[in-house]
Amino acid sequence: MIHGGQLQEAKQQFPDAVLPWIDLSTGINPYAYPFLSISTERWTELPSVHDELQLRKIAAHCYGAEDESYVIAAPGTQILISLLPYIFKAKQVCVLCPTYMEHVNSWQQAGIPAHQVASLGELMKFASQDQVVGVICNPNNPDGRLFSKSQLQDIANYWAQFKNHLIIDEAFMDFEGEGAGSLLPHPALTILRSFGKTYGLAGVRLGFLLSDLDHIERVRQMLGPWAISGAALQIGLQALQDRSWFLQSQRQLSLQAKQLDQLFLTHQCQIVGGTHLFRLIEYPKAQTLWKYLASQGIWVRKFEYNAHWLRFGLPHKRQWDRVQKTIRDYFSAG
Amino acid sequence: MIHGGQLQEAKQQFPDAVLPWIDLSTGINPYAYPFLSISTERWTELPSVHDELQLRKIAAHCYGAEDESYVIAAPGTQILISLLPYIFKAKQVCVLCPTYMEHVNSWQQAGIPAHQVASLGELMKFASQDQVVGVICNPNNPDGRLFSKSQLQDIANYWAQFKNHLIIDEAFMDFEGEGAGSLLPHPALTILRSFGKTYGLAGVRLGFLLSDLDHIERVRQMLGPWAISGAALQIGLQALQDRSWFLQSQRQLSLQAKQLDQLFLTHQCQIVGGTHLFRLIEYPKAQTLWKYLASQGIWVRKFEYNAHWLRFGLPHKRQWDRVQKTIRDYFSAG
Repeated sequence: MIHGGQLQEAKQQFPDAVLPWIDLSTGINPYAYPFLSISTERWTELPSVHDELQLRKIAAHCYGAEDESYVIAAPGTQILISLLPYIFKAKQVCVLCPTYMEHVNSWQQAGIPAHQVASLGELMKFASQDQVVGVICNPNNPDGRLFSKSQLQDIANYWAQFKNHLIIDEAFMDFEGEGAGSLLPHPALTILRSFGKTYGLAGVRLGFLLSDLDHIERVRQMLGPWAISGAALQIGLQALQDRSWFLQSQRQLSLQAKQLDQLFLTHQCQIVGGTHLFRLIEYPKAQTLWKYLASQGIWVRKFEYNAHWLRFGLPHKRQWDRVQKTIRDYFSAG
Repeated sequence: MIHGGQLQEAKQQFPDAVLPWIDLSTGINPYAYPFLSISTERWTELPSVHDELQLRKIAAHCYGAEDESYVIAAPGTQILISLLPYIFKAKQVCVLCPTYMEHVNSWQQAGIPAHQVASLGELMKFASQDQVVGVICNPNNPDGRLFSKSQLQDIANYWAQFKNHLIIDEAFMDFEGEGAGSLLPHPALTILRSFGKTYGLAGVRLGFLLSDLDHIERVRQMLGPWAISGAALQIGLQALQDRSWFLQSQRQLSLQAKQLDQLFLTHQCQIVGGTHLFRLIEYPKAQTLWKYLASQGIWVRKFEYNAHWLRFGLPHKRQWDRVQKTIRDYFSAG
């Protein structure tokens, strides 16, 4: 698996790059949430069962679920993705692609055939098959394709007719609007929500799964008590309640996303799509641009399956001048 | 499940207890490892793949395994216990009891019959059955019963003859001596090691599983990348290499364990056993003592299955005078 955020690789491939590196290969908010310092007991004691319940209540509220019984917290969304094949009894899975590759990967590693389909129409054809799970990332990574809540409701209702399950990975939904949480409990729906991306705290490891009571119970059994660290509990409790920071961060990122789009549009690039946390551009010489940026110490995502695409995480505003100048230099030289 | 460390419960049951509460209901080192403050990138960036490899190398060295390929890190040992039924293909499991109840619990919740046996002889009878997994906590919680490495090797060799697996939970082994890590790779052996208890950092969530390459790969698939937080990585890397702190802590705890044993021996109590992190006493009026201690703000473990047992976690030396006085008061009044 090639992931963003492996700057080690960048350093090895481009030892003579301009320093310091600017890592735009991830979709992590460059503005980290300024949490209060972690209290001693958070480290020394087992994570508080009471606070974990509180966190689930707050998460339920944030993500639109009726109450905390439909929510479980995990040390990051990734571990939930890795456990999905054990949570759902499926003979095959169908993933709307291209998308975050760990979905296909985790089912395949568990020995369950994973079909990669390119359109919603194709995905829907699988709904009527025996014990099939469908996976949609919404908004999608890397292209930002977004289904509305009512579209998802229609899709999920259709899947429910055949008693099959649909997983909606809303890892990048927070800044985009309303997720599908309020459709729960729904016989076909399971939703993943990510904490670290939105709050710029990917190292904390915190994520959520929302589903019906049976599946929540199954995940609870697999994670056991205390899967979330004391620090993650404290940070999550503070951050998820801080609406004013959230709105300010959203505004800042909106502005910067427009700035970045504008910069590319003035040259020969198309904006394929994106979210508040990354932008996907299409450009015939994407590989050349990627190499140039890397030589200049700017690390962005390229894709094996599409040589014309590059994905840019949003830079911190402190990094903007250098990013802008580097991109301009490339185009004025080319 | 009744666990130690749920002081919330103590507060509700004994609202008039002497304050502050002293929680001796866990087996967590009262001397927390004094780690360096967590660097910003540990929170903001995805946990470093490079550092995770380093941590596994150091853990392999600490636990006596040949190299890091036999070691995987997880967010606490508990999640590993919860996942064991999915890691091993077993038709039944046999747990040497009484012991840490989450072992029986996790298999039962996964729908696999869990036999609780009271002697090694009974456990060994299961070895020849079809697809059975054996579980031994060594040293045992709560009584400290300890098998030597060579005993475990004999036991494991016997299980291997029948192609069955044996799980050794060494959660409390660190301060006791050599674990079974150097027996790996072994066709029958999987070992669990705990970080939070030894280093007094139960909130960090860090634990390890040691096994053969196939089972390590299976656990890796289930946890996915980045299951360990950035903070856990940093703290683990520092703590596991600090031999001088470890030895000092071990000496301190030895002294205090002797002190506590001595105190009970001068009264009508027997020391059943224990480790550097807890002592188990047998006393006919254990329930009365438990209640008295709770009323005085000292919370220890009692056991549903043995009304004469109490388990005492070791107090911090700052707490010793109060603990000693309270126990003396009880016996002089009784």
